Amino acid sequence: MEKIFVMNLGTTSFKFKLYGYAGEEAQVLASGEAECVGAETSRYVLLLPEGGEIQGERHLPSHGAAFETCIELLREKGVLVSFADLTAVAYKAVHGGRLSGTRIVDDDLLAEMERVLPLAPAHNAIYLSAMQSIRARFPDLIQAVRFETSFHATVPEKRAVYGVPYQWKEELGIRRYGFHGSSHQYIAETMKKLAPSARRVVSCHLGGSSSVCGILDGKSVAVSMGATPQSGLFQNNRAGDFDPFCLPFIMERYGYTLEEVLKILSSSSGFLGLSGVSNDYRLVEEAAEGGNARARLALDAFADQIKGLIGQYAAYLGGLDALVFTGGIGFGAAELRSRVCEELAFLGVALDEKKNASGAERISSDASSVSVWRLKTDEESVVARCVRDLLRKGV
Amino acid sequence: MEKIFVMNLGTTSFKFKLYGYAGEEAQVLASGEAECVGAETSRYVLLLPEGGEIQGERHLPSHGAAFETCIELLREKGVLVSFADLTAVAYKAVHGGRLSGTRIVDDDLLAEMERVLPLAPAHNAIYLSAMQSIRARFPDLIQAVRFETSFHATVPEKRAVYGVPYQWKEELGIRRYGFHGSSHQYIAETMKKLAPSARRVVSCHLGGSSSVCGILDGKSVAVSMGATPQSGLFQNNRAGDFDPFCLPFIMERYGYTLEEVLKILSSSSGFLGLSGVSNDYRLVEEAAEGGNARARLALDAFADQIKGLIGQYAAYLGGLDALVFTGGIGFGAAELRSRVCEELAFLGVALDEKKNASGAERISSDASSVSVWRLKTDEESVVARCVRDLLRKGV
Repeated sequence: MEKIFVMNLGTTSFKFKLYGYAGEEAQVLASGEAECVGAETSRYVLLLPEGGEIQGERHLPSHGAAFETCIELLREKGVLVSFADLTAVAYKAVHGGRLSGTRIVDDDLLAEMERVLPLAPAHNAIYLSAMQSIRARFPDLIQAVRFETSFHATVPEKRAVYGVPYQWKEELGIRRYGFHGSSHQYIAETMKKLAPSARRVVSCHLGGSSSVCGILDGKSVAVSMGATPQSGLFQNNRAGDFDPFCLPFIMERYGYTLEEVLKILSSSSGFLGLSGVSNDYRLVEEAAEGGNARARLALDAFADQIKGLIGQYAAYLGGLDALVFTGGIGFGAAELRSRVCEELAFLGVALDEKKNASGAERISSDASSVSVWRLKTDEESVVARCVRDLLRKGV
Repeated sequence: MEKIFVMNLGTTSFKFKLYGYAGEEAQVLASGEAECVGAETSRYVLLLPEGGEIQGERHLPSHGAAFETCIELLREKGVLVSFADLTAVAYKAVHGGRLSGTRIVDDDLLAEMERVLPLAPAHNAIYLSAMQSIRARFPDLIQAVRFETSFHATVPEKRAVYGVPYQWKEELGIRRYGFHGSSHQYIAETMKKLAPSARRVVSCHLGGSSSVCGILDGKSVAVSMGATPQSGLFQNNRAGDFDPFCLPFIMERYGYTLEEVLKILSSSSGFLGLSGVSNDYRLVEEAAEGGNARARLALDAFADQIKGLIGQYAAYLGGLDALVFTGGIGFGAAELRSRVCEELAFLGVALDEKKNASGAERISSDASSVSVWRLKTDEESVVARCVRDLLRKGV
């Protein structure tokens, strides 16, 4: 059985799923997560087959240490026989610059991720550090990545370029990349099963970070994030699209350096900056319900941007057959879905408000010519399968 | 008769129209322009009532000098009796920061235009210099402006905010403003006459600089330019929307300062930067027809962005009743209109390709549920009328 250990890393968070493959069928052998990586004490929890669970606290100084701890616990429980029992570790890595798709971690890949570090500083630094430390400790272990940009390789060039000197694209790779590729790909694949005749799909991945993707015949043709994960829709604490010509104005008025302004745009903006309440969508919703005007403004602006993107992508797709909400917020926030779909009747969208509120999978009314869905995404399964396929090809 | 002299100023260009009002009816008493203002020799041409024309060359060191020359020539020809015969001079000024609408030029207004100079450096500097020099020379002459942001004051706040700290809006006025207001307003007013039942209109002002505006019941509810005229669609030589997180990456790789990168984004980008051919749309079209791939890419990307904005604004408007193309490119480029309208059938758009090519005013087919138009804009008439109304109110 091929066993692939997929990691999804945040600044202080560590999540994994261990997949086993016998033939085509995937099986989740274990999953788990650790919080507060790097702090004095980290809490971890692992879910094992048949409902087993391991919880504990330990000092996990790095993502590499979290990985080792998980493997050790899985060996103790007999889920893994040894390190050699692991076919590969796989990463849902973010920015591969000119490298996209599914790839073995090698010197070239590390160098390219390093080169584009300034484009995704928070994300790439974590993955680079984990990859390097695991490589040093376990030089024989195969490491592979599925970049979050991969699914968007099919976006046409006219929609990927910025209106900047073309040399910047050729020499530096400055273009729109798009992210959340594994999630949008999962939605595209799932929709092929759920609604095979739906050729024109818009997928809204809304969560701690969010993006909208236009999908034609299963392929990405448009995506709201651009060159960096700081662009597109505004995020929990990231600004999303912003006018660079404001930067010198802000720097001068507040006495900031460029680095300081960008730091604010990537960590004190989005829901947090607009609402002044929190970077947590649920807390912003609560504040808005309690009458907080800035929280209401943030929610309104977010719903409005999503609605606009759906219209924009309908224009690229020549109409719309299906609309999907996924990600923590997309799956959870019924009111948001309702507000986004308001006034989209001209596209053929009609939500069934009861189904929407009750948490059905298909939430459009029977009369709706566009089917509307609320789906759980599963990014790790895409990463694991892509890495399995790469290894089976013998690369 | 009230006589209002409207000025439209570019870096080295000077255009004017002199309007006379007897009651409501406007009459163009004269118009004209000068090129190469500031150079050794400027060429000017004035058109007078009943087909008269004055052409000449002269050293016009500044826009103020161009103004004086025009007034002097109009007095010689008897169009104006004296300076005192002039009710006001009016400017189609660009960025008023927190000041919008139609206003008398006073110390506060000059100070606010000065404050937001970094947001519209090319535009505001020219107007400030002209206003200040005319004020110094003719202290009794009333000067007034209609800001290009004015028509967009009705855009809802949720659509005007960026996902940045809200204090930036309150303290610095960092928000989406939108520009080309006089042109979009002219289109909105014209459409009320041409198609009174069309409540939901998208106006595409495409020219040396371009923007798209969503209009509901005659009011702007969405606009593609943001905080500065460097944002939105890419322009002849300006980048349009760009990801600020690319800036440090570009600066480091090429050794640029922030100022240098922004200079490139505002003067060597857009059609010029993408195509490598020219900032002139017609020359880019010619190159594309001759097989130049980058020129083709620039045209494709431009049409694609416009198409996307039409879809986006249809979502904001809840559908579409009328679509208008205006500005030099919008009015002139039949192929562009055709490409933008392709695949918009889901909105009810059906172009009549013959009418589109032959230059009719209404270019949609009879079966089209959305009427599509090709209209000449007239920004100066809006500025003049707004200033006349302000003065009649006795402000």
